[in-house]
Formats: sequence, C-alpha cells, structure tokens
Amino acid sequence: MLVEKLQEIAEAKWFTNFITFVIILAGVVVGMETYPSVVEAYETELHILNEIILWIFVAEVVVKMGAEGSKPWNYFKDPWNVFDFFIVAVCFVPGAGSYAVILRLVRLLRVLKLLSALPRLQLLVGALLKSLPSMGYVTILLGLLFYVYAVAAVFIFGANDPMHFETLHLATLSLFRVVTLEDWTDVMYINMYGCDEYGYDGVEHLCTDPNAMPVVASAFFVSFVLLGTMVILNLFIGVIMNGMEEATMEQEEFDERERMKKQGITEPEHTVEHELFELDQALEELHKKVAVISRRVRAEHDGPPATDGAVDPAE
Amino acid sequence: MLVEKLQEIAEAKWFTNFITFVIILAGVVVGMETYPSVVEAYETELHILNEIILWIFVAEVVVKMGAEGSKPWNYFKDPWNVFDFFIVAVCFVPGAGSYAVILRLVRLLRVLKLLSALPRLQLLVGALLKSLPSMGYVTILLGLLFYVYAVAAVFIFGANDPMHFETLHLATLSLFRVVTLEDWTDVMYINMYGCDEYGYDGVEHLCTDPNAMPVVASAFFVSFVLLGTMVILNLFIGVIMNGMEEATMEQEEFDERERMKKQGITEPEHTVEHELFELDQALEELHKKVAVISRRVRAEHDGPPATDGAVDPAE
Amino acid sequence: MLVEKLQEIAEAKWFTNFITFVIILAGVVVGMETYPSVVEAYETELHILNEIILWIFVAEVVVKMGAEGSKPWNYFKDPWNVFDFFIVAVCFVPGAGSYAVILRLVRLLRVLKLLSALPRLQLLVGALLKSLPSMGYVTILLGLLFYVYAVAAVFIFGANDPMHFETLHLATLSLFRVVTLEDWTDVMYINMYGCDEYGYDGVEHLCTDPNAMPVVASAFFVSFVLLGTMVILNLFIGVIMNGMEEATMEQEEFDERERMKKQGITEPEHTVEHELFELDQALEELHKKVAVISRRVRAEHDGPPATDGAVDPAE
Amino acid sequence: MLVEKLQEIAEAKWFTNFITFVIILAGVVVGMETYPSVVEAYETELHILNEIILWIFVAEVVVKMGAEGSKPWNYFKDPWNVFDFFIVAVCFVPGAGSYAVILRLVRLLRVLKLLSALPRLQLLVGALLKSLPSMGYVTILLGLLFYVYAVAAVFIFGANDPMHFETLHLATLSLFRVVTLEDWTDVMYINMYGCDEYGYDGVEHLCTDPNAMPVVASAFFVSFVLLGTMVILNLFIGVIMNGMEEATMEQEEFDERERMKKQGITEPEHTVEHELFELDQALEELHKKVAVISRRVRAEHDGPPATDGAVDPAE
Repeated sequence: MLVEKLQEIAEAKWFTNFITFVIILAGVVVGMETYPSVVEAYETELHILNEIILWIFVAEVVVKMGAEGSKPWNYFKDPWNVFDFFIVAVCFVPGAGSYAVILRLVRLLRVLKLLSALPRLQLLVGALLKSLPSMGYVTILLGLLFYVYAVAAVFIFGANDPMHFETLHLATLSLFRVVTLEDWTDVMYINMYGCDEYGYDGVEHLCTDPNAMPVVASAFFVSFVLLGTMVILNLFIGVIMNGMEEATMEQEEFDERERMKKQGITEPEHTVEHELFELDQALEELHKKVAVISRRVRAEHDGPPATDGAVDPAE
Repeated sequence: MLVEKLQEIAEAKWFTNFITFVIILAGVVVGMETYPSVVEAYETELHILNEIILWIFVAEVVVKMGAEGSKPWNYFKDPWNVFDFFIVAVCFVPGAGSYAVILRLVRLLRVLKLLSALPRLQLLVGALLKSLPSMGYVTILLGLLFYVYAVAAVFIFGANDPMHFETLHLATLSLFRVVTLEDWTDVMYINMYGCDEYGYDGVEHLCTDPNAMPVVASAFFVSFVLLGTMVILNLFIGVIMNGMEEATMEQEEFDERERMKKQGITEPEHTVEHELFELDQALEELHKKVAVISRRVRAEHDGPPATDGAVDPAE
Repeated sequence: MLVEKLQEIAEAKWFTNFITFVIILAGVVVGMETYPSVVEAYETELHILNEIILWIFVAEVVVKMGAEGSKPWNYFKDPWNVFDFFIVAVCFVPGAGSYAVILRLVRLLRVLKLLSALPRLQLLVGALLKSLPSMGYVTILLGLLFYVYAVAAVFIFGANDPMHFETLHLATLSLFRVVTLEDWTDVMYINMYGCDEYGYDGVEHLCTDPNAMPVVASAFFVSFVLLGTMVILNLFIGVIMNGMEEATMEQEEFDERERMKKQGITEPEHTVEHELFELDQALEELHKKVAVISRRVRAEHDGPPATDGAVDPAE
Repeated sequence: MLVEKLQEIAEAKWFTNFITFVIILAGVVVGMETYPSVVEAYETELHILNEIILWIFVAEVVVKMGAEGSKPWNYFKDPWNVFDFFIVAVCFVPGAGSYAVILRLVRLLRVLKLLSALPRLQLLVGALLKSLPSMGYVTILLGLLFYVYAVAAVFIFGANDPMHFETLHLATLSLFRVVTLEDWTDVMYINMYGCDEYGYDGVEHLCTDPNAMPVVASAFFVSFVLLGTMVILNLFIGVIMNGMEEATMEQEEFDERERMKKQGITEPEHTVEHELFELDQALEELHKKVAVISRRVRAEHDGPPATDGAVDPAE
C-alpha cells in the first residue's frame, strides 16, 4: 500500500512541478550567494534554505526508490536517476564542506538536476549524446591532427617560443587557441620573426633562444588553420545535424505518446497524421533507393564495356 | 459611404507605396540629423518635415481604423497594426521630447514601420519569430550552461579577476564574450597565470588577490568554449533552418493567393481530398516511369537493338 | 566566307585554350610587376609583353564580333562579352595611364577575364548572382538593422567615442566590425566605462566628452551581436545553399549537353540516367505535396471543431 | 606455401590489431620525447624502442609484399600502401638523421600510419579527398579572388604598410589573416589613417612613406571580408556536405560487405533489375497507403462513425 502511494506521488504532475520549482529555487539561492553583501546580511536564512532544499532532494530520491517496491535498485536502471543520485550524494561527502568555494560549487551542481527534471531537456541532451558516437572517427581524425601538429610544434618552435610551445600540453592549448582563430597571427608572427623581434615585450627574459623561421612558421600555421577549422566545423555540423534529426524524431514520438495519453487512446497507429508521417518516410526510402540505382547505372556506364552483349550475360 | 471610401484608400496600391515612401523619407531625415552641421543649417526645415511625417502616420492610423467601420478596435487584431500604433503613440508621450537624444531615438523607431509596410518583410520576420519556440529547449539549455558557468566563475575567479568576474552579471557578459571567441585567451591567461603576471598592466590596483590556477582555468575555458559554441551554433542553425523553411512555405502560399487574386479566383479546389487525388495521380505517373526504366535497362543488358524488338513484346 | 572562318576560329578548342593561356600569362606578368627589382631589370620586356597581351585581347573581341557576321552588335547580347569588352576598353581610356598605380590596376583587371573564359566558372558565378535576389528581403532586413543601430549609435555614443561613432558612415563601419566579432568588446568597453577610462591611451585629446553608460552599452552591443550575426549568417547560408543548388543543376545540364555533343546524339531525353533524374525530381515533388497535406490536416485538427459533422459539410 | 602463409598473416585480425598497437606506441614514444627530462633519463631505452618499432613496420611491408606472391609490385596498387611504404622508407634516407629535430619529425610521421591502419579512417579521409574535385571551381574562384586582391594590395598599400603588403607572398598571408577575421581592422586602420598615425608604434623606422586612404582602404577591406568569407564558407560547407554524404554511402556499402562476408554470401542479388523491382513494389505500397488516407479523410469530413459504412462501399 505504501509502495502504491509512493508510485502515485512519483508520477503525479504536482510532484514533478514541485521538484522543478525547488531546483530553480536552488539556482536562485546559489546565484544570490555570489553577492558578498547578500551572504553577509542573510547568512542564516540562506543556510537554512540550502538545508531544506537538500533534504527535499533526499526525499525525492527516497520516494522514487520506494516506488520501485521490493526492488529499490531498479531506481538506478535509468541513467538520469544515477545522475540525480550522484548530485545529491556528493553533498554528503565528508570534507566537501571544508572550503566555502568547493561547498558552493557542489551546491551549484544541483541546478543541473533541471536536465533530468524536464523530460524534453532529457530528450535534447540524450539526442546530442547519441549523435556523438556517429562522429567518432571525425573525433579520432581531429585528435590525430592535434597530436601530430602539437608534437611537431614542440620540436620546431619549443626553443623560440617557450610561452606557447614549451611542453606538449601547452602546445595543445596553443593549437586549440589557433583553431578558434583567437589572435592566431600573434603566435605565427612570434615564430616567423623570432621572439626577439615580436611578442615578448616585457618578458624578454623568457626569450633565450630566438630563431626566425618565416617559411616554416607560415606554412605550419596556415595549413593548421585550414585543416583544423575544416575538421572541427565538420565535427560540429555533424553532431548538430545528427542531434537535431534525432531530437526531432524523439520529440515527435514523445508528443504523440503525450497526446494519445490525454485522449485516452491505447491503439495508436491509425490517425491520418500518423499515416502521412509513414507516407513521408516511405518517400524518403524511395529517394535513397533511386539514388542507389542511379549510382549503379552510372558505374556500369563508366566501367568496362558493360553494355556489350558479350560481358553482361555472364552476370 | 465614408467607411467604404476609407477601405478603398487603405487597400489601394498608391496608399501603401506612399506610406512606404514616407517611412524611407523619415529614415533619411533622421540619418541627416546625425550630422551636426546639417542640423544647424536646416533646423526649421527638418522640424517641419518631422511634424509632417508624424501627422501622415497619424492619418494612416485613422484611415485604417476608420476602414473597420463601426468596429475600430478590429484594427488592433493584427499585431502589426499594434506595432504601428505603438510607434506613432510613443511620439506623443509627454516628456519624451525633453532630451534631444531621446526624441531622436523615438523618431528613429519610425524606420521600423518598414517591417510592417512591406508584406514580405512581415512574412520573413514572422517566420523567424515563429521558429523561435521550436528552439525553446535549446535556449533553456544555453541559459543553464551560461548560468552554471557564470556562478562557478564568480566563485572560482572572482577574487583573482574582478574586472571580468566580480559579479554575476559581469561574469555573464564576460562569458558571452568568450563564446564569441573575442580575445577569450586573455581572460583565460589572466586566471591561469594570476592577475599579477598577466593582463592587469595599468590597473594593478584592481589586482588585490592574485591567484594562478593553470589547470582549473584552462579546463574551465576550453570546456566552455567547446560546449558554448556548439550549443549556440545549434541554436542559430536551428532558427535559420526552421525560419527559412517557414518563410519559403508562407511565401509560396502568399504568392499563390496573390496570383489567384489577380486571376479573379476566390477560393481554390485545394482541399485535402483534392491534394490526395493529385498525389495518387503523381504516384501513377511514377509507376509508369519505373516500368519504362526497367524495360530500357533490361534491353541494354541483353544487348543493343538486336534483342530490342524480341524482348519487349514478351512483357 | 570570312565570317565562317571567324566563326570556326571563335568556336575552336585551341582558340579558347590559347586565350585562357594568355589570361594566365597576363596574371603572371602583373604579379611579377609587384616586385620592384623585376620591374627595374626587365622594364622593356614587360612593357612589350603587356602590349602584345592587350592586342591579343583586342583581336579576340574582333574575331568574336566578326563571327556574328553582318550583326556585330549581337556580340553584346551575352553579358560576359560586355564584361570582356569593358575590361579591354578601359585600357584605352586616355589618362588611365597617367599614374603607374592606376595603369597596373587596370591591367590587373584582365585576370578577371578568366571568369568568362572558363565556362564552369561562368556557371558558378552566374549561380551565385542568381541566388542573390531570392535573398533580397534578408538583405533589406540586414540593411534596416544596420541603419537603425548606426543612427542610434551616433546619437548615443557619438560624443563619448568619436573614434568609432562620430559620423554615420564611421558608425556603419564600426558596426560591420562588431558583426565580424573583431575586438567588438573593445568598442563596448569604451562606451561602458567611458573613453577616459578605457581605450583612448595615446589619443586622450580625442576624448573630450567622456560618459560611462554600462547598462546601455552592454545591452546595445550584445543585442546587436546576436541579431547581426544571426541575420548575416542567415544571408550567407541562404546564398550558399541556393547558389550550390543552382550551380549543381546547371552543371548537370551542362555536363549532359557536353556528353551528348561528344557522342553525336541529337535526340536527348531517353537515356536511363535522364529518366532516373526525372524520377528523382518527381519524388521530390511528391515529398513537398505530402508536406502540404500534412500541414493542412494538422491545421484542420487544431482549428475550430473541424471534425464535427456539423461544420465540415459546409465546405 | 610461404605466400599463402603470408597472405593469411596479412589478413589476420590479430596482425592488424598488433600493427595498430605499434603505431599508437610509436605515437606515445615520440610524445614522450617532447619532454627533455624524459629524453635524458631514458635515452637508450627510447632509442632501442624506436629501432624495434621501425623494424616492425619494415616487417609489415615485407609481409604485405610477400602476400602478393610473384607480383610484389601489386602491393603499390593500393595508394594507402604507397603511403605506408613512403613513411617507412623516409626513415632510411641518409642525412635525415643528421639533425635531431628532423629525425624526430620523420619519426612523428609514423603516427599518420593510423590513417591507413583503421579502415573507417581510410574511408573518411578518402571521402574528404574525393569531395575536393567537386569543389574545384570554387577553389579556382577563391584563388582568383586572393590573387587579384593581393596584387592590388601591393600596388595600393605596399608603400604605406610594408609590414603587411611589401611583397606578393606577404600580401597573400595578410589577406588570409583578414579572411579569418583575425584583427583585420588593425590592417584596415593602418591604411585608413596612415602608418604614422596607427599601428607602427615601436617600429616607426619601417613607416617611410605614410599615406592615409580612408575611402579606398575601407572599401577594399570590407568588400574583401564579405566576398572572401562567403567564398571560403561556400568551399568549406561544400566539402563538408559532399564529404559527409560520400562517407555515409561508402560506409553503408562497407558495412553491407562486412555483413555479407560474415554470413558467407559471395555476391548479392543487388543488380539494377532487382532494385527496380523493389522500387516498383514500394510504389505499389505507397499507392495503397494513399488510398487508405483518402478514405479516412473523407470519412472524417463526412462525420464520425455514422457515415463510415455507408460511404466506403461506394468506392
């Protein structure tokens, strides 16, 4: 009986809305803590509010676990629940509260519960995450590009420009800066003209081994800008396009389920909208099929004497 | 009779063109007012011109209201009319003219009436606005990202770099700057090397609590640049794609309506049934086309002309 | 007989290739003239070469005009011919040669003849130009945005920051800079903190009327960056997408015509490739049709009690 | 018999995995060599490791060549094998090891063998390369734009701004910088206000011929930014879109071939005739679907259930 009661609460509209409200409240409180004057004036109130919010989140976990009845570990089957649990659990780690900054950052994490509280935000983030693996090889390519250029940069420019290329991790950071096009010419000019001529004003003591490499530096940075921005743009566009498609499809399914739930329909499928949606997908399929045939026909025409009677019959 | 006369005027081509001309004139006048020498030389003329333009716009409102006959409030049913009315009304707010700058800015608003005067611009802006809600959850995601990073930045970097992260709103502005990639590495280096080593030249008195955080700062800004640019690019591409699609479809409808109005057709046979009938016929056509292709491909495979006559009859 | 001869020449492969070679030669010569040492050493040779190139281009115009027979003015019917003629004619304008710089710039224009010499480049540029009108209203929107913000900037920031906003054209240039995100925060900070506090180091005499406007400036520039980059991105993506589509279609037609010319086919249409292309287009049409039906059905469902028996029969 | 053994090895899963592991190891070793302290402490170990890695790669080449039996030159028919061979061969070029930096850069190249070792990375890079020719004319257009603007810039701005526009190659580099929008306004302002007024602080001796050209410089750079960014964006988007499409299609084919290899199928029934047959059946399906939708829409319009049975039989 308690289990059923808890299930009812966990699925109730007011419960979700209440939790969303508390998350937003937690966000407002942590935002107010960024103003020292507010913290001084209302220290006790804020502390009490934070405690209340924390215990409400603990209660939420308990309710949701309890709703699973005799198998509370089922709660952890939904990765978003694991996410929620982790955010609440981290507040109880001993020592987390020893520094005010860390304590506040831990509290700030609670705002992220908004991701799991709004089903559509869950969908969106899930879609973006799901589109990542499909871009996996572009990521490997990008990693390879950065690694090869970073190692080469340390070997070639490390002595002349220690501020940007002394170590491998510093070189990676500098190349990331170059790929965002942020003052990338400054980095290039330092290595084109040597650190004694450009860019080390005020820190001349760091320029111990000046070496001007006009041709090497300009070829290195121009080629990296071209390759790097193209691959990174490829990656971004790929993730966004795949993510948007995924999100649109999941949201349509979600909307239809919601709509049907409202109308009390169980048997789905047979609305006009749904049929038209299927029709559209069938057309999409046809489109791809025609593309495949076109390709094959063109290949046959361009290939060896395929249209001769002597060869084709053997097919 | 007066109502019919007003309706005729309000819908006349010359009336729309005249209003458009007056709007452009208003734009030219306010542009000329930016040159002090022009203002000095022609002060009276410009003042009179501005008065005339204002009263023409008042007349436009009166004509359009009057055209609604006994229900002048119908005028406000079109949101673009509300927009027009507001722009004219704000010129009569007492006190608006007390400062020259404010008076001129208020007059500058009249140029925006161009949006409502050109039907296709109306469509375009409407389409962009309509595509915003579909991106609503990406906006929430972006807001969440900014809020969490901004609060964290105040806690972590507030003491070391008060110029960029002293308060929450300053931090939000600095993060917006970072996401546009504008000198974002300067902000990062200040917090990597501490404000005593980088970036506070000339304002050393603001650097009261220097603190170098190389690992935290680079991880913070690199991750924010990656996440922020991706989400914001997602938002922009989403709005643009949806907006363009929406605009194209609305413009097609608009063009068709215009075309039909010219030809004197009142309402088309474009019911769903008719569309489905056309769709069916199009499919029939496709069916035949595929049959033709099949025959041709088979003919090519079996060999040139020779087998042509022999095979096809067998079909 | 001469006309036929000229026609033969004008259409010959070797003639086109020769002209293309001369254009590239003209480009190399003008490129070499950028090096003063080369100009000094080979002044006479370069001068003679330039004269020869010019007269070859004159000869090309004569040949092409002559090929039109008794109606030489037909030559000007192709806009690319007008373009060619203008580039050659401008070299004979008296006074053009009075300054070395202008003479060289005029000669540099000849390199642009490459656009008209390569048919595919003609197609590409033509496609980009053709896609411009379809973006006409986005351009108007962009112009309106720039105009309103520029006039407002002169009124609001003109006194504090004369270096960027003294006059309307300077303000337009500064806003174009802001929209490319080039050091846009410098412009913002000058107006947020006042020119006495930021950005006028070394030119303090220009800062006669300092005025800090933290809220107005940040709202002004952040909103302009958001709106401006979105509209300009919209414009660019629109032109590129439309241009690419247009270029692809024209190039396919061009390729097919070339291929058929080679194979000596006159009757086109009936290849398998062509049929498949038509099939694909038909599917595209169907796709749009289904989209229209879906929209209409959805509108009916969302609208007033459309599915009720009482209302619909009236349709 | 040896040949069969070698073929077996060359195609074995463990062999590919082992080579991939050795490539990654080679990458880690060359990465460690960027830290001087590591090189000093483990000089001998790193040297031995590098020798072992090199000979493993030599052995790979020998195995793959041997697997071709009596025609070892067939090995070079796969361009990726040529790529592999070149990377190994360059390590044996005499004199390559005379400078530590060059020796290390040569070793760094081995990391690129990862491209040929992972078949999907091969596909991805191959797809990107294949999409380049289709963008060939956009590249020519871009080259033409750069060349014309660079030559013009040397003639117009060469005297005033030798740091950016003294020679043709320096001008090309500066224009590339402008097209990435990196501090492009600095370059513009130098030529708008003259080098004596802007941008040559600290290097006044280079400013020998100051010349302020406000109108020419702003028109030159604004037009170049607009044209250059549009064409370069066109190129990037074209390559990415074509590359993604190509990669998707090749990966689908690759996956299908893999799947069929597993299932022991040699060649599918995927002839053109079969595809067309499937297409025809799909159209038949669509035909029925449209009929179903038509009936349902008519039913809805005529009113709920009541008319359902009465109307349909009439079809």
